[in-house]
Amino acid sequence: MTGNLLGERFVVVSFGESHGRCVGGVIDGCPAGLPLSEDDIQRDLDLRRPGVSSTSTKRSEEDRVELLSGVFEGYTTGSPICALIWNKDVDSKPYEKIRKTPRPGHADITAFWKYGGYNDWRGGGRFSGRVTATFVIAGAIAKKLISHTLGIDVLAYSIEIGGIRAREVSDDEAKKFRYSNEVRCPDLEVAEKMRIKILEERSKGDSVGGIIECKVLNVPVALGEPVFSSLESDLSKALFSIPAVKGIESGIGFEVSRLRGSECNDPFGVKEGKIVTITNRAGGILGGISNGMPIVLRLAFKPTSSISKPQKSVNRDTLKEVDLVVPGRHDPCIVPRAVPVVEGIVACVIADHSIRAGLIPPVIKRGFKR
Amino acid sequence: MTGNLLGERFVVVSFGESHGRCVGGVIDGCPAGLPLSEDDIQRDLDLRRPGVSSTSTKRSEEDRVELLSGVFEGYTTGSPICALIWNKDVDSKPYEKIRKTPRPGHADITAFWKYGGYNDWRGGGRFSGRVTATFVIAGAIAKKLISHTLGIDVLAYSIEIGGIRAREVSDDEAKKFRYSNEVRCPDLEVAEKMRIKILEERSKGDSVGGIIECKVLNVPVALGEPVFSSLESDLSKALFSIPAVKGIESGIGFEVSRLRGSECNDPFGVKEGKIVTITNRAGGILGGISNGMPIVLRLAFKPTSSISKPQKSVNRDTLKEVDLVVPGRHDPCIVPRAVPVVEGIVACVIADHSIRAGLIPPVIKRGFKR
Amino acid sequence: MTGNLLGERFVVVSFGESHGRCVGGVIDGCPAGLPLSEDDIQRDLDLRRPGVSSTSTKRSEEDRVELLSGVFEGYTTGSPICALIWNKDVDSKPYEKIRKTPRPGHADITAFWKYGGYNDWRGGGRFSGRVTATFVIAGAIAKKLISHTLGIDVLAYSIEIGGIRAREVSDDEAKKFRYSNEVRCPDLEVAEKMRIKILEERSKGDSVGGIIECKVLNVPVALGEPVFSSLESDLSKALFSIPAVKGIESGIGFEVSRLRGSECNDPFGVKEGKIVTITNRAGGILGGISNGMPIVLRLAFKPTSSISKPQKSVNRDTLKEVDLVVPGRHDPCIVPRAVPVVEGIVACVIADHSIRAGLIPPVIKRGFKR
Amino acid sequence: MTGNLLGERFVVVSFGESHGRCVGGVIDGCPAGLPLSEDDIQRDLDLRRPGVSSTSTKRSEEDRVELLSGVFEGYTTGSPICALIWNKDVDSKPYEKIRKTPRPGHADITAFWKYGGYNDWRGGGRFSGRVTATFVIAGAIAKKLISHTLGIDVLAYSIEIGGIRAREVSDDEAKKFRYSNEVRCPDLEVAEKMRIKILEERSKGDSVGGIIECKVLNVPVALGEPVFSSLESDLSKALFSIPAVKGIESGIGFEVSRLRGSECNDPFGVKEGKIVTITNRAGGILGGISNGMPIVLRLAFKPTSSISKPQKSVNRDTLKEVDLVVPGRHDPCIVPRAVPVVEGIVACVIADHSIRAGLIPPVIKRGFKR
Repeated sequence: MTGNLLGERFVVVSFGESHGRCVGGVIDGCPAGLPLSEDDIQRDLDLRRPGVSSTSTKRSEEDRVELLSGVFEGYTTGSPICALIWNKDVDSKPYEKIRKTPRPGHADITAFWKYGGYNDWRGGGRFSGRVTATFVIAGAIAKKLISHTLGIDVLAYSIEIGGIRAREVSDDEAKKFRYSNEVRCPDLEVAEKMRIKILEERSKGDSVGGIIECKVLNVPVALGEPVFSSLESDLSKALFSIPAVKGIESGIGFEVSRLRGSECNDPFGVKEGKIVTITNRAGGILGGISNGMPIVLRLAFKPTSSISKPQKSVNRDTLKEVDLVVPGRHDPCIVPRAVPVVEGIVACVIADHSIRAGLIPPVIKRGFKR
Repeated sequence: MTGNLLGERFVVVSFGESHGRCVGGVIDGCPAGLPLSEDDIQRDLDLRRPGVSSTSTKRSEEDRVELLSGVFEGYTTGSPICALIWNKDVDSKPYEKIRKTPRPGHADITAFWKYGGYNDWRGGGRFSGRVTATFVIAGAIAKKLISHTLGIDVLAYSIEIGGIRAREVSDDEAKKFRYSNEVRCPDLEVAEKMRIKILEERSKGDSVGGIIECKVLNVPVALGEPVFSSLESDLSKALFSIPAVKGIESGIGFEVSRLRGSECNDPFGVKEGKIVTITNRAGGILGGISNGMPIVLRLAFKPTSSISKPQKSVNRDTLKEVDLVVPGRHDPCIVPRAVPVVEGIVACVIADHSIRAGLIPPVIKRGFKR
Repeated sequence: MTGNLLGERFVVVSFGESHGRCVGGVIDGCPAGLPLSEDDIQRDLDLRRPGVSSTSTKRSEEDRVELLSGVFEGYTTGSPICALIWNKDVDSKPYEKIRKTPRPGHADITAFWKYGGYNDWRGGGRFSGRVTATFVIAGAIAKKLISHTLGIDVLAYSIEIGGIRAREVSDDEAKKFRYSNEVRCPDLEVAEKMRIKILEERSKGDSVGGIIECKVLNVPVALGEPVFSSLESDLSKALFSIPAVKGIESGIGFEVSRLRGSECNDPFGVKEGKIVTITNRAGGILGGISNGMPIVLRLAFKPTSSISKPQKSVNRDTLKEVDLVVPGRHDPCIVPRAVPVVEGIVACVIADHSIRAGLIPPVIKRGFKR
Repeated sequence: MTGNLLGERFVVVSFGESHGRCVGGVIDGCPAGLPLSEDDIQRDLDLRRPGVSSTSTKRSEEDRVELLSGVFEGYTTGSPICALIWNKDVDSKPYEKIRKTPRPGHADITAFWKYGGYNDWRGGGRFSGRVTATFVIAGAIAKKLISHTLGIDVLAYSIEIGGIRAREVSDDEAKKFRYSNEVRCPDLEVAEKMRIKILEERSKGDSVGGIIECKVLNVPVALGEPVFSSLESDLSKALFSIPAVKGIESGIGFEVSRLRGSECNDPFGVKEGKIVTITNRAGGILGGISNGMPIVLRLAFKPTSSISKPQKSVNRDTLKEVDLVVPGRHDPCIVPRAVPVVEGIVACVIADHSIRAGLIPPVIKRGFKR
């Protein structure tokens, strides 16, 4: 299989370029009978739309999703759903000037090597963050599917930006407040500090990174396949396809390396007649399989590579060193707009594994509820 | 596809259980013409063999690999290579007693839920660390393949155990010293401290975790497929199938979240007539594609779940809480034996992507060298 | 993987419905550097266009292909190519009346069962012959790829329609004359008889079937993977996805069953310094792998299921038997319009296997010729 | 994915060579909870065992299956089942002499080209009919699975050998008599004539081909995935991996090409409150999806390629023409021993699609019956 495809039973095929005609995807394997409209998707797309907040790029795209297939009379048909957004506010001129001087931190040079110079270099082409719009589209369908059939909730939010850390918040707070502010942080006090930090660094021509946490609530037990399709395997594979992600933790993550077994293991107990773990350091996954506790993930995002400060680069043809000032319109921090992307991609993996585990049938009959 | 299969063109199929007849795998897609013998594999297998060091489990397995197919007159044939090790020193009695009381930190309860009680529970069955022997077998073949054809080297080693951190070492030190001591740490002074720490915690009936770093040297450019089969995606998917891994970093990993763009981007320069990055914070991967610099990964391993200290569990049938003392023979720290496993699994992914990128042909002619 | 996807390295993803917004596909894995324009595709699409010949349906569709991604400045980029045609001349009214009475020979009832009634039933929806337009689009790209890089030619043509059999023709005749007439038969005398036969049966409200032969010329040796991805396996899988195909032969096909070994085996000889088979009863494939001789396939097509003669059906809801007269606009014989579809789908499989065999590199450099 | 793997959810991985240590497979995706023993498999294996009938090869192999994993306490565990048979009566000497002169009708030359001479050539190596033992092993598991859970029956039998055609038999006759005679033909009178024909041709140093029919009874509706994984697509792909198959028909097959629509369509009727087709020319498949009627397939088998009559070949190295007399022990007709292979492979595909359609759950609870 090629690299533009994710999943086994709930499959996402990605296509499109940043400055081409569109970005979109084919979502295949969604069971028939799910109520679905463009509005369901647009809501999530609007959360990652560029040009609407003080901390995001000035590229202004409407990003209206169009469903081209697979939905009929308000329901999914079981056939592939092709969905896309047209590129409208495209300005490729700034890229023309720097075509031969790869931008540090970007895929310009690796794309050039891989595709022998035939790749669409405008706006990063296939390597632009814009391709993540497709993850949001697919994710919106996946979220609706797993919520409608299994009651699963996926919540992502910023917990750290530019070195500023949020306090721990409850799931309820996360649900309520994560999209109430520009930086997608449910700790509202800290959110404002994060916002100011981003603007500060932007004013200096720089950018900042951060950390997103994602929780999956109300997860059924037994999702995940040993040994190579463990939940953590498939989640991390999917999440590392978000540009700028450089680290992934499951449960308490790297903290495990400093604990003793007696401090790290989650003891078992009984709650409402069910076996549960009393703590959740494992983040809802034991042996690669869901144990019914919330899944907890954390992702490290690097600062936006495109900054206006001069950087050292090299002319691809002449091999001469140059001081590069990256033109174009960019987010000074990718983290806020990545929050719905993380939710979407996690939902796709959970949907895929829910189908693989036999928890969602090929046809969702009216009133189906597991 | 099912979960017991890894890769697209260099494929590993895993089978076997800890206390069944064997653990093994089918390695398919290895090009014809690679010189290969059981000795090539045995060397690596011996590095993860149990029962041979002061810090490992007392289960004593010879772990002699047998090649059942795919190799003929000293060369790979291009047909699937089935390879396995027979289980010999099996003692399932201790597990009988705790069959209904899931061990904290283990997959006992999730396996029971997933397979409705039909799973082989003896010694963790399919969820035992013993299945990673197959990763080492497949990895030894992959290492030979990428070294023989492309000169690629894969080096893993412990950099932290029980909170004790090694100093940074050179690649040469890593090559020379990583397997010179029981804990697989090339910083020899720290290695001895780590060893003592493990023995100390074992004497208290406890266990410790740690961090393994893995470098891939002499990587060709252009490995990795956007968007869902980026090198980081496929490496992390593969690495999270090693039991006990709870976090993965690429390049400087989580550190990126606290840097500015100007501090995080690797500037470009020229070296020996080639474009390189002057620093390597990205860990050899830009936009999911190799840029020719060393690939750098770090993995967080949790402390061994099986400890002899009493822990809280619940009887699966009666739902009564019990104080569980886990019997059996276990490693007080999984990190040292995981080092060759990490090398193997990383080599499998690099081999797969090297074939996908067209860098290794279906038949390796005598004298082939890219 | 889902059923809407074909191939391993040259991948076709199909989407769209007969009376929905469009039919299209994503073609992924096409190497970078192939010169490609919409015209290259349009030529083949025009060969299966409805409404243009005396023997085809009256549905009049322009069928203008649009390339939405993956092509830049006249060359493929190595990224997924999304291509589609919009549905324009849609008239779903006739289908409304027969929605609950499945048409004999059609997928109406099986689609209803499979998708629980959520499928788009208009014009056969996802089960319409119209989805084969995507096969032609993908096939045009594949044909250009294998012709440009390897000089491979794919020729399909009608050899039998309504019981009228063409004489054997040379490859040159096939190249020249197959598209010179409405029924796509290179035996021009017989072609006219076939045309008349089709019109005759249509005038009686009936339809006819036929046989298409397909040859692949200038095939390199060593295409095909044992044991489950033999060339015959992958060709037949792909070809059986053309609606109406009910039988497939490779080489002399069913005739083998009546021959002795001494009559069936192709003896070896030498031609221009190369080992060849003197006869080609095997149809260019030995042990599932190409031997350099022309690949020869034959496909049985059933008569169009939609006929205007009354047929017995059953009301899906009431289970009452009804005499059904199928409305709508249909081809009285599907064979002529299927010819370019067969060429396309065969080209896709050959392209896939050429890439898998390492014969086409990921980037086609200017002047590449194997 | 590589070519040695079949299926999506019920997966067969094949390994092994004719004169290597063993032939075997990994069967993955079989749900947990299926009662399974080596005896279940041995019964079917014995039906294709060589050396036991007057019309088969003299190679005498015990062919005792060994289950190495995935079965525990009499039930499948849900983990991969590795099963194999050891090669015992191996005599490679005859092949040494003809190593450089490819046998007509065999894959000797294509294997040599594909694998650059590294392939195991002894006894045909990977291209031997012996690899089909794995199909029978996997098939026995699949048959048990679909019979146990869904009541599906798979029946294959010879209908033509050496030009001698059996009369049509009822399903009951097929069940009772197909394995009652050496040639696996339920028309007992004709069976004896076929047997004599085979012996006659063998005495002349020649071989004969034939046709196998396969029926699948009690098929649930809605198996098969449009468009590329139609039942016919996946069945034909699997069946063409049986060496010697050169043609496949579904339903009435090639006969469709000579019928009118009004003669070919199966009219609908009602039987026991269910919609059925009154005739079954479509062979149980409409639009690639099962309609509940028996699936009917027919396969053309070529005569065994290995014959003792002299044939023209060419020395691979010197390119000199030679008269080749093929040594070794061979079946004068492959058809009888292929019958259980066809049943097995068809059962694997039906099992795969039954799981994909959600009809068999991941765990088969005691008493499960759909």
